Amino acid sequence: MRGAVLHAPGDVRFEELADPTIVEPTDAVIRVSATCVCGSDLWSYRGINTVSKPSPFGHEYCGVVEEVGADVRNVRPGQFVIGSFFASDNSCPNCRAGFQTACLNRQPIGGAQAEMLRVPLADGTLVATPDLPDDDLLPSLLTLSDVMGTGWFAAVAADVRPGMTVAVVGDGAVGLLGVLSAVRMGAERVIAMSRHEQRQKLALEFGATDIVTDRGDDGVAQVKAMTDGVGADAVLECVGTHEAMTQAIKSTRPGGHVGFVGVPHGVNIPGELLFRSHVGLLGGPAPVRRFLPELIDLVLRREIDPGKVFDLTLPLSEVATAYRAMDERTAIKAFLLP
Amino acid sequence: MRGAVLHAPGDVRFEELADPTIVEPTDAVIRVSATCVCGSDLWSYRGINTVSKPSPFGHEYCGVVEEVGADVRNVRPGQFVIGSFFASDNSCPNCRAGFQTACLNRQPIGGAQAEMLRVPLADGTLVATPDLPDDDLLPSLLTLSDVMGTGWFAAVAADVRPGMTVAVVGDGAVGLLGVLSAVRMGAERVIAMSRHEQRQKLALEFGATDIVTDRGDDGVAQVKAMTDGVGADAVLECVGTHEAMTQAIKSTRPGGHVGFVGVPHGVNIPGELLFRSHVGLLGGPAPVRRFLPELIDLVLRREIDPGKVFDLTLPLSEVATAYRAMDERTAIKAFLLP
Repeated sequence: MRGAVLHAPGDVRFEELADPTIVEPTDAVIRVSATCVCGSDLWSYRGINTVSKPSPFGHEYCGVVEEVGADVRNVRPGQFVIGSFFASDNSCPNCRAGFQTACLNRQPIGGAQAEMLRVPLADGTLVATPDLPDDDLLPSLLTLSDVMGTGWFAAVAADVRPGMTVAVVGDGAVGLLGVLSAVRMGAERVIAMSRHEQRQKLALEFGATDIVTDRGDDGVAQVKAMTDGVGADAVLECVGTHEAMTQAIKSTRPGGHVGFVGVPHGVNIPGELLFRSHVGLLGGPAPVRRFLPELIDLVLRREIDPGKVFDLTLPLSEVATAYRAMDERTAIKAFLLP
Repeated sequence: MRGAVLHAPGDVRFEELADPTIVEPTDAVIRVSATCVCGSDLWSYRGINTVSKPSPFGHEYCGVVEEVGADVRNVRPGQFVIGSFFASDNSCPNCRAGFQTACLNRQPIGGAQAEMLRVPLADGTLVATPDLPDDDLLPSLLTLSDVMGTGWFAAVAADVRPGMTVAVVGDGAVGLLGVLSAVRMGAERVIAMSRHEQRQKLALEFGATDIVTDRGDDGVAQVKAMTDGVGADAVLECVGTHEAMTQAIKSTRPGGHVGFVGVPHGVNIPGELLFRSHVGLLGGPAPVRRFLPELIDLVLRREIDPGKVFDLTLPLSEVATAYRAMDERTAIKAFLLP
């Protein structure tokens, strides 16, 4: 089979690779129907995270089960499945608490930007759709593997409830789907913080009620001015920089919560700021497995359309173009078809 | 009247001071029935917080109303009252959200270690008991002004619920009352982290089920060993140092919460640690005003006895001895009678 391999910063190649096989009796091998490039892949592509040797890349996937190991019970060949970017047993105490990305037996998924993929702990990781889904639902279903589940978790972690005013820091695909999630959870007012016209447009399409283009303390001042001087009830931090986290905390009202899902790079939260602000924080790698059944149902019933974040569709063989477009921010998110 | 004045680190004097008077029509002046020394007073006493000029000290108080300003409606002369360590209007958006210590009009209380005290925003700040309370309830009622309300808030912020396993970092008066609070909220197992025999004893009296004497990573390992390797459901951080905060986060299970109430000194929370741990954080100066009605009721019905944290009673004139005893940790908390 063929797949994407990151050789060095900026150097993604589409190469012939060994077909994945069942290694553990709990594995499944799937034929990938669609995959994509994640904002977090860019940390390595840009050389901020170190890549010491050529590595198969990608962790977002959906597809059809090709083969399962002897111990797999919940999925079978021929089923269409979606899984999380971490494999989890879905039965340990952390999984049972709804934090499958903290599974005591978790394993990273790698090499999903390929024609086929080995998924460990298939029973705990994969969720099958009742039937083979319509092709036009593929983009939305793919987002549930990471980016939509991550935006959803940001809103859950920020404790978004009906009637609230919610601010979203970050206008990448996760931030935009954070907007969609907050709207879906009943937020009355959703403030998208963005200075890119195309992303603002999509945020409004997803239900954002306000756009704030200012950043840092000016952005904070804007949010405060819109909320009687106290700040938003809930804020979604979808970037992962120190500036974004600080802006998120300062934009939140006392007693409000920040849900943070941007992978932190250089974030240090001053205890005194957090203490003075009375702002709650919860985040981490989104336990998208928790949300898969509910979100699959919403997509199949065509109640949400998170696939709209894909504004570039390419054959998987052009994966290098997809990375470049996202790195240069000419695309919000690239959809790849093997 | 006379009261405590901090002149310089280690130098507390009991001095003749001007009687407080009604300055604003929303003020009350109370005759202090009992006051005490707070752990946070020690930051200044030890010279860690700067004291630039001789300052009347203390912010924990209960007493009898002597006089009220023309606009005060909720309390009247002769009533026994307890108030928070911050004056608040109890009507702004932050107060209505239950975060009165973030009141948009808040004012610090100072000089409570005195015979009389001016309390600004009396209507919002003070809560009166139905009758003059029995003398033996004075210590417990006094704790509601800060230390008990703070331990209670730590447990609320950590989202303590019935059946949970809760760990408490810090064995000062706040930590010990955090134990009492968690027990009262239905925690099944409460792990007090303490290496002082007398404090361990009081923790057990308040309902702690386990004592852990190790600190840092060893303490974390102990808590994990007691919780199937995942960590406590909720952790109360009642110290305010970087080490205590780190220990608290690492002791919490993914999806669990840390309630932090120790005033942070040198705390910097690495975003990556918080992200990887999936631990929620909420803290700050406790909005004790929110809890006053409920906690006054529990004390008057003799259902809780937080006054047990006072293990040294002195006349207010010996306030310097009280500071010294708490600084040297020969007393948990000193009770002062004017």
